[in-house]
Amino acid sequence: MNGNTCFSALKERILKDGKCLEGGILKVDGFINHQIDPDLLEQMSVEFIKRFAAVEYNKILTIEASGIAPAIMLGFLLHLPVVFAKKKKPSTMDNMLTTTVFSFTKNRSYDVCCSKDFLKPGDKVLFIDDFLANGNAAKGIIDLVQKAGAEIAGMGFLIEKSFQHGGDYLREQGIKVESLAIIDSLDNCAIKFRD
Amino acid sequence: MNGNTCFSALKERILKDGKCLEGGILKVDGFINHQIDPDLLEQMSVEFIKRFAAVEYNKILTIEASGIAPAIMLGFLLHLPVVFAKKKKPSTMDNMLTTTVFSFTKNRSYDVCCSKDFLKPGDKVLFIDDFLANGNAAKGIIDLVQKAGAEIAGMGFLIEKSFQHGGDYLREQGIKVESLAIIDSLDNCAIKFRD
Repeated sequence: MNGNTCFSALKERILKDGKCLEGGILKVDGFINHQIDPDLLEQMSVEFIKRFAAVEYNKILTIEASGIAPAIMLGFLLHLPVVFAKKKKPSTMDNMLTTTVFSFTKNRSYDVCCSKDFLKPGDKVLFIDDFLANGNAAKGIIDLVQKAGAEIAGMGFLIEKSFQHGGDYLREQGIKVESLAIIDSLDNCAIKFRD
Repeated sequence: MNGNTCFSALKERILKDGKCLEGGILKVDGFINHQIDPDLLEQMSVEFIKRFAAVEYNKILTIEASGIAPAIMLGFLLHLPVVFAKKKKPSTMDNMLTTTVFSFTKNRSYDVCCSKDFLKPGDKVLFIDDFLANGNAAKGIIDLVQKAGAEIAGMGFLIEKSFQHGGDYLREQGIKVESLAIIDSLDNCAIKFRD
């Protein structure tokens, strides 16, 4: 098992229930990011536990909203705290770390923030999210973690679109990246997995 | 156990780690809505299971983002699908139900939407959210569920601010509402629980 191997339960589910739309879009809202299948979520979290078994981390970090479910399940199985970075600055949040992320999908920038109370010097965080595409959200997280004086222990994604190259960038930085399903192409609305 | 009894594990945690700010604001971002303690989350979900033991439901419904964690944990323990209504219309969502919610906290309206694929006639949904205050989000959910031809089986909240009266409204509609901690007052930055 490594970052280049698809997790079969997820791959099968994508083939069964995923929908490929024009423009390289993969819809998985029946089981990942609108309706969630908690049993599949547990299986995927167990797979993350295996893939990051040799890594030391004390906290799970994600970004709202679609990352929360996989992060929570993993934190629950490991009895680790889960922190979700927020896409808007809450009026009640002080003591804050902020970074700016550009979304290609939405063609606009947004701020991502996290309280220093929950991301601290010495923390070794495992970042979890649903999708890895161009990697801009992940780059924002790296910036937040650096600003906090904490450390990225690894990054785990349910689905990586390798043709958008965010994974290349992250792996070049020496980050351990594990994606449970790697999709090399969605051309002509056909889902082509890495293996 | 009923809607008027505080769940002691949550009450104790609020007293230990919650922060009361000016203007009736209770900050619980150390364990509920920014950093999450998955073990407390499990205990709270088990408490929901007990309180809704006599109720029949086939789906957990919540709104992004802070409702996702408690909804996922409950869905996981019960092996039920979890649907989270979205606060913005995703560009890839069709076949959609929409309602408008006015947020007093943010002093603006926002749309909440859900695909008809995941909220269907005959569904009996248990709605879960972190906070119940004036109840506007809950009213929006009732509207969505009615538009879907589905049914509200019950509504569960981690924390209810009874002095903002959303709970009164929902209970008057005959809805079974269970809140794990009911706060009657935050006057003078003192947390006063129902019991």
